[in-house]
Amino acid sequence: MSILIKNVLLYNNITDILIEGNKIKTIAPNINVVADKVIDGTEKAAVPGFVNCHTHAAMTVFRGFGDDMELEPWLSDKIWPYEAKLTSEIVYHAMKLACLEMIKTGTTCFNDMYWNLSAGREAAEEMGIRSFQGKVILDSDHTKTFNETVHEVESSFNKYQNTELTTFTLAPHAVYTVSTRILEWLRDFSKANDLLVHMHLAETPLECDNCKKQYGVTPVRYLNRIGLLSPRLIIAHCLWLDDEEMQMLADNDVKIVHNPNSNLKLASGYHFKYHEMKDKGLTVGLGTDGVSSSNNLDMTETMKVASFIGKAWRDDPTACSAVDMFKCATHNGGIILNKQLGDIKEGYLADIVLFDLHTPAFTPNYNLISNIVYSGNGNDVDTVICNGKVLMENRKVENEDEILRNGNIYAHKLVDDDAAE
Amino acid sequence: MSILIKNVLLYNNITDILIEGNKIKTIAPNINVVADKVIDGTEKAAVPGFVNCHTHAAMTVFRGFGDDMELEPWLSDKIWPYEAKLTSEIVYHAMKLACLEMIKTGTTCFNDMYWNLSAGREAAEEMGIRSFQGKVILDSDHTKTFNETVHEVESSFNKYQNTELTTFTLAPHAVYTVSTRILEWLRDFSKANDLLVHMHLAETPLECDNCKKQYGVTPVRYLNRIGLLSPRLIIAHCLWLDDEEMQMLADNDVKIVHNPNSNLKLASGYHFKYHEMKDKGLTVGLGTDGVSSSNNLDMTETMKVASFIGKAWRDDPTACSAVDMFKCATHNGGIILNKQLGDIKEGYLADIVLFDLHTPAFTPNYNLISNIVYSGNGNDVDTVICNGKVLMENRKVENEDEILRNGNIYAHKLVDDDAAE
Repeated sequence: MSILIKNVLLYNNITDILIEGNKIKTIAPNINVVADKVIDGTEKAAVPGFVNCHTHAAMTVFRGFGDDMELEPWLSDKIWPYEAKLTSEIVYHAMKLACLEMIKTGTTCFNDMYWNLSAGREAAEEMGIRSFQGKVILDSDHTKTFNETVHEVESSFNKYQNTELTTFTLAPHAVYTVSTRILEWLRDFSKANDLLVHMHLAETPLECDNCKKQYGVTPVRYLNRIGLLSPRLIIAHCLWLDDEEMQMLADNDVKIVHNPNSNLKLASGYHFKYHEMKDKGLTVGLGTDGVSSSNNLDMTETMKVASFIGKAWRDDPTACSAVDMFKCATHNGGIILNKQLGDIKEGYLADIVLFDLHTPAFTPNYNLISNIVYSGNGNDVDTVICNGKVLMENRKVENEDEILRNGNIYAHKLVDDDAAE
Repeated sequence: MSILIKNVLLYNNITDILIEGNKIKTIAPNINVVADKVIDGTEKAAVPGFVNCHTHAAMTVFRGFGDDMELEPWLSDKIWPYEAKLTSEIVYHAMKLACLEMIKTGTTCFNDMYWNLSAGREAAEEMGIRSFQGKVILDSDHTKTFNETVHEVESSFNKYQNTELTTFTLAPHAVYTVSTRILEWLRDFSKANDLLVHMHLAETPLECDNCKKQYGVTPVRYLNRIGLLSPRLIIAHCLWLDDEEMQMLADNDVKIVHNPNSNLKLASGYHFKYHEMKDKGLTVGLGTDGVSSSNNLDMTETMKVASFIGKAWRDDPTACSAVDMFKCATHNGGIILNKQLGDIKEGYLADIVLFDLHTPAFTPNYNLISNIVYSGNGNDVDTVICNGKVLMENRKVENEDEILRNGNIYAHKLVDDDAAE
């Protein structure tokens, strides 16, 4: 299968892009080959598909289910009791809905942590979107022994082979929900099998205070002591870090994910230290977090909010530029997930998004990146190609009506036994 | 002309809405009349058209033209030199582009302050959108005498009669750009002619410090001393207010406009005191500000950012709820502009927007207002009715291709003599 995109704006130039198989083969003007499919790129801009580096995608079923609440009642009344009732059928349809939303807003790859890995993987594969998925590892509730937890992780590692689209990861939930013994075991298991480890860290002051009480040190220092800091570790949030902790993370090439909307909505904090991290050489990606705490999966919105809140709290309108945030949402995602994606380059995976420039948000178009990050939104995406396959064209995705209807049906199946608010 | 919207979701009920002339005539299920036009409201939600209470709409020509810059070089290198070259032709096409963008994102009414009132009014009238427009009043540069400024304001007041769609307002720029003598004259002129006064106030610490240096008091106290505080005064930004100033504003029923995106992008501040103002009985509206400082005119984004930043800086996830922000963007706009709009009620002006619910952002739809404010964006708007006329249906606006092309052409006419960045 080959795809030829003709006359598309790629950064500052009009060019053609030839895709062969799942890779970008040639980028040049006037490519003269017969391709299986030709896409007219006129009045469109090609950018790398966005990489959502931290989400719980199947939480689409919780969209708008318990907003504007305090964290504790939100979790104990709204999220946990219903998550306990999730079936693989619900997760499957919720994940399809999430993938549809991501495709329709230009995301081609996401890094996920949730329940029912089998259903999540099946849905994402069917949708043709690239994903990194790990089942939440959690043992602080003592419902499982150490050996049971280890066995479960080993079994799922053996069961879920990586495919072209789907990569297996380890997803210990957080320092307050996973025992030291399991974290130590994960350190060795991830190293032995070269697996990414995806974890929440330093999200709230309470987490940091409790970690100090329980282990005598802050979360980063605790992980450092365990020896879990490594280039394979991806940590989400990282709002509450001091300079020494950022240096520890940089020394170990740990990967960071900023989730501005979730951090703001849950009032976890707003002073994410992007520039300090960048200065130390840390790689920062962006994530939406789950829909229950950001309400959508639109990475363009995530880039804008990351930029604007960064400027505001630093009292510096030059901070967190559009170009920087765009790089976090694309290029840095490729670095974090260790795949050749996040850039439009010959030899890279063909994960490409075309924005429609014939819209108010892109008129005038003095500055494409500024317009994508600050003016447009995910609905301005017209065409999405992932792994060399067209997933959306003219904003149409295959079976989208059915996915929306099922998403709705299974969301209501989950919550309608009890009263939604 | 009558319009019948059938089977539409209005808050929690499916109903019909009958529009006759420019007003909402009847809201009831199963309305059985022959209307000139029937709109199928199935899988759509009707909400009041959004009211953008502070903008400089024709600044669409500056979209993405000088982002991520310090305030001073941005103004002196990017904005002011080009604004000096604005012609009425450019303002006309820029305003059409702005109106197109507003219609396509669900705004049916805006409160504007800019140059070339004639061109701005003509463009908005042609687009069929409701507007309140005032030409910037500014005399601190001493290019005009007191009498010349007064004469100009009086002439334009006499020239620009109010129409069904367009209302004349007075728009003194700010306390640092308008002399006390002119502000005093505007106080009397606005009272005598019952005119709204639209002004920037307390946007930056520098403005407040300079006001204290020049007049011995903060901006609100200065306006209070002049006697300009009144129910007709609409002040934008209001970031830097103490409790006593908020009380002065409340005692005089002054109207407030919060512009969260602009405030964040320009690093003017983020601690807008919504709850303190609400508790004092102040009416707070929302605005995008000009596209040069918010980059788009999407009020759904403005509501979300207002809510999320409000929660974050207050460290309170229950603050600035979706329902509150939605009210600011609709109902409060009607109060601020003193028109029967901002609600869907019998007898009110027929400014109605239909959101398409058959989209990922509205699936599931447990909570419509949350989905509009937190999950959807302006592109989820399907149909726009303003003053009883359909301006957009199935996302199509009359002449939109031509408006986009001209917007682009005239933007480049403005800036291409010199090098854009």
